[in-house]
Amino acid sequence: MLMEDKCPRCGDVTRRHRNPVPTVDIIIEYQGLGLVLIDRANPPHGWALPGGFVDYGESLEAAAIREAREETGLTVTLLGQFHTYSDPHRDPRQHTITTVYVAQGHGQPQAADDARRLAIFAPEQLPPVLAFDHRLILAEYLKVRPKWLTKLKKSSEL
Amino acid sequence: MLMEDKCPRCGDVTRRHRNPVPTVDIIIEYQGLGLVLIDRANPPHGWALPGGFVDYGESLEAAAIREAREETGLTVTLLGQFHTYSDPHRDPRQHTITTVYVAQGHGQPQAADDARRLAIFAPEQLPPVLAFDHRLILAEYLKVRPKWLTKLKKSSEL
Repeated sequence: MLMEDKCPRCGDVTRRHRNPVPTVDIIIEYQGLGLVLIDRANPPHGWALPGGFVDYGESLEAAAIREAREETGLTVTLLGQFHTYSDPHRDPRQHTITTVYVAQGHGQPQAADDARRLAIFAPEQLPPVLAFDHRLILAEYLKVRPKWLTKLKKSSEL
Repeated sequence: MLMEDKCPRCGDVTRRHRNPVPTVDIIIEYQGLGLVLIDRANPPHGWALPGGFVDYGESLEAAAIREAREETGLTVTLLGQFHTYSDPHRDPRQHTITTVYVAQGHGQPQAADDARRLAIFAPEQLPPVLAFDHRLILAEYLKVRPKWLTKLKKSSEL
C-alpha cells in the first residue's frame, strides 16, 4: 500500500510504501500468583498485556525484555515465543503485528511508562475486557498454559 | 529510531519513526517430494524460501498464501505458523521481521515474480547456502518436521 507524505514546508507530496508496524507483547508469569497486566495510560485504555513497538535494529526478544522492564519494572526471563498476531483490525490506531512471548517475571512489579497501574491476575479471574486482541491471545495461551508452566519449572530449577 | 525524510522539492527535513518491516516466508511441502525453494531474481540472489513483504491491511496468513502463489504458482493450504525471526542482520537490505508458515502445496509449480527458477529439494539435499537466514530457519524446521508431516497427513485426510 502506498501512502502520501506532504512536506510541511512546501506541500509537495511524495509516495512511499506503508507497512504494518511490528510490536511485542509479553505474557508474564509472576511467582506462581498469576499473570501481570497493566492498565494503559494511553489510548486504547483498559487492561492489557505489557508490550510496545519494536525499534529498528532491535530483535523481538530484546524488545520484549525492554518493554516488560519499562512498563512493569520486572526483569523477565523469556521462556519462548508464543505466537504472532496480525489481524489488521487488532489495534484501533494502525495495523500492527504483535509477536507474543511467554516470560517469567523477577523483582518487584511497579507500573511505569505506558502503565498507570498494574496487577497480578489469577488466570481464572482475568478482566472480562482487555485492550486490543489480548483477550483472544490470553484465551489461546490458557489452553496450553500447563505446557509453559512445566517449561517455567524446568527453567527455574537450572 | 528516528529517520530523516528530505523533501525532493524544497529540501526540508522531517523526522519520523523507523520501524522494522514485516515479511512472511513459506515452507512448502510438495506432494511427498520435498520442499519448494526459489532462485531469487532480485538481490540478495541465491536459493531461498518463497516469501515477501506484508501489505498494510493484510494479515500474515493472507500474505503467505499470496506470496506463495505469486512466486511458485502453487495454491497452498497453511498447516500453521512456525516461528518469527527478527535478527536485525538477517536481511542485508534493511531490518525485516519474518513470520514463517508451514504449508502444503497444490498444483503445478512454476517460477514467477521474484523467482527466476524453482526446484523441489529433498530435505537431506538442500542447497548448502541459502539467502537471508533461511538455512537457519530450515535447520530448525527439519528438527520438528515429523510433527508437521503428521499434521499434513491429517489435513490431507479431511
